[in-house]
Amino acid sequence: MSDPLLLLALDFGGTKHTAALARAGERVWVDRRQQAAPPGADADSDMTMMLGLARGLLTAHPGPLAAVGVSFGGPVDFERGRVRLSHHVPGWEDWPLRERLQTGFGAPVSVDNDANTAALGEHRFGAGQGCASMLYMTVSTGVGGGWVINGRVYRGADQMAGEIGHTVIDPAGPICICGRHGCVEVLACGPAMARRARELLETQPQAGAVLRELAGNDLRAVTAQLIARAAQWGDAFSEGILLEAARHLGAGIGNALSLMNPQRVILGGGVTKSGEKWWAEVRRAARANTLPEISAEIAPAALGDDAPLWGAVALAQDLMGLSTD
Amino acid sequence: MSDPLLLLALDFGGTKHTAALARAGERVWVDRRQQAAPPGADADSDMTMMLGLARGLLTAHPGPLAAVGVSFGGPVDFERGRVRLSHHVPGWEDWPLRERLQTGFGAPVSVDNDANTAALGEHRFGAGQGCASMLYMTVSTGVGGGWVINGRVYRGADQMAGEIGHTVIDPAGPICICGRHGCVEVLACGPAMARRARELLETQPQAGAVLRELAGNDLRAVTAQLIARAAQWGDAFSEGILLEAARHLGAGIGNALSLMNPQRVILGGGVTKSGEKWWAEVRRAARANTLPEISAEIAPAALGDDAPLWGAVALAQDLMGLSTD
Repeated sequence: MSDPLLLLALDFGGTKHTAALARAGERVWVDRRQQAAPPGADADSDMTMMLGLARGLLTAHPGPLAAVGVSFGGPVDFERGRVRLSHHVPGWEDWPLRERLQTGFGAPVSVDNDANTAALGEHRFGAGQGCASMLYMTVSTGVGGGWVINGRVYRGADQMAGEIGHTVIDPAGPICICGRHGCVEVLACGPAMARRARELLETQPQAGAVLRELAGNDLRAVTAQLIARAAQWGDAFSEGILLEAARHLGAGIGNALSLMNPQRVILGGGVTKSGEKWWAEVRRAARANTLPEISAEIAPAALGDDAPLWGAVALAQDLMGLSTD
Repeated sequence: MSDPLLLLALDFGGTKHTAALARAGERVWVDRRQQAAPPGADADSDMTMMLGLARGLLTAHPGPLAAVGVSFGGPVDFERGRVRLSHHVPGWEDWPLRERLQTGFGAPVSVDNDANTAALGEHRFGAGQGCASMLYMTVSTGVGGGWVINGRVYRGADQMAGEIGHTVIDPAGPICICGRHGCVEVLACGPAMARRARELLETQPQAGAVLRELAGNDLRAVTAQLIARAAQWGDAFSEGILLEAARHLGAGIGNALSLMNPQRVILGGGVTKSGEKWWAEVRRAARANTLPEISAEIAPAALGDDAPLWGAVALAQDLMGLSTD
């Protein structure tokens, strides 16, 4: 028995699926496999793809499978182990994911949503190690969050805690997909930056020369990533867009600091790769928006896109009573 | 030994001090004494007054004192048992309250700020019994808050958690004493209502006839209490002021619900006695300002002004390992 405690981690993402094997207590993957979900995917095809990835891993690395941890990119009923729905893929409504995987693998399974698994991953293995309380936030196409309180994932009464993306910071702001005005998400996520840039570029023909060039003079091609790159190349217009979004994010974080005073806030997701000026403005705005007695330690995620997968490892460890907390 | 487990609860308020005796496990006071702090009070005179109240109680009800719980109306370093300062009374800066009381009474002492003790009191003995997670809020001359998470008071990294009064809900709003614009406190507390009413009454000579009469036609005499009374008597102007403040409070609660999804939010303090329309608007605005999947159970405090004192009893019980959680 070369692998006495083999753990399987699964990450059902919106556009790609990942399966990885780890040994309990180790912090490198034994192996991992990833595959993009094709257009027209549904819950059944997602499951077939993921089971294929996992079986491939287990065949290549035989050994007793101790437990399975799962991160799912959508709302999950953690207690019951059921997916509530996917915002991207049809067919996941009230889906008994834990039960199906337990039957399939003959091992205990734990399932949580990707914000909570990423928070748990960063807490156990990444930038949140040793924190009694932390807020993990992902800032990319949306703004999501997950809490660790007293060393454990805190899910809330309806398992909905962490929805910082839909806290309102400016009731005069633009309308969000959630129906409210001026949420953090609609002011600070990547698509929000791109939309704001397009709006302004349409009415300011002289502005944003670098950004226009990067986008091939096609406003539809403007993305948050291009805005960040143009800003780093000195495009004042793009820097303005970037820092405005950073300021809004910081305002939302400031409210979370006042309300919960976590030891650390950890930011992950594509938008956090927007450069030092973005980070400085997020930190400045967060401090400005909370009380001076409240420390505001805001740090980048350490595990990157692997945070949910490492959180899945932590879920699997916890099933075995191997938590290091 | 008629009183085998006598607990002393002390409440240092801004304007009055209360000492009370309870027996562990009972929910009625053995006895309680209260005294108003005179103008010009300082930490020493507050202490002298409180010790006098407590010694009077202990003389009238002799028996072994098991533990002392203390609620203090200002920032407290719970771990070290020290008052940080009082916003009302000079001399409390970095004051070793726990140590002094332990020496004075020869019993273990636990000290926390009034928002946390009120939250604990409501959780253990009042409207929050059985709640895994709850936010207690006091809405009176200010807006404060305290958290119970997983059945225990959650204080945060700097023991500053619960500052919902200084979360920003409208960056275009009026400036708060904290220096930010549009905090919940500056939009929803009692003095905020009175200030808003005065501003409008000065420019609208026909408005608020009932309120003007209640205030003896002296705008300086307008208070939140009079506004609530005028609203109940059908004064449309006063009802407008009242519901505007309620809407702002609900907006702040909505953000807290999105962020933490507590099982229950409990509201205490003078402003919560403003009538059913105020409550209905708080509840409506809170629901409108959070996601539909999040339940929003908002309930009145059950212990009224005694919440901090009962929380002090809970602190004392916890010192004895008598927690019922």
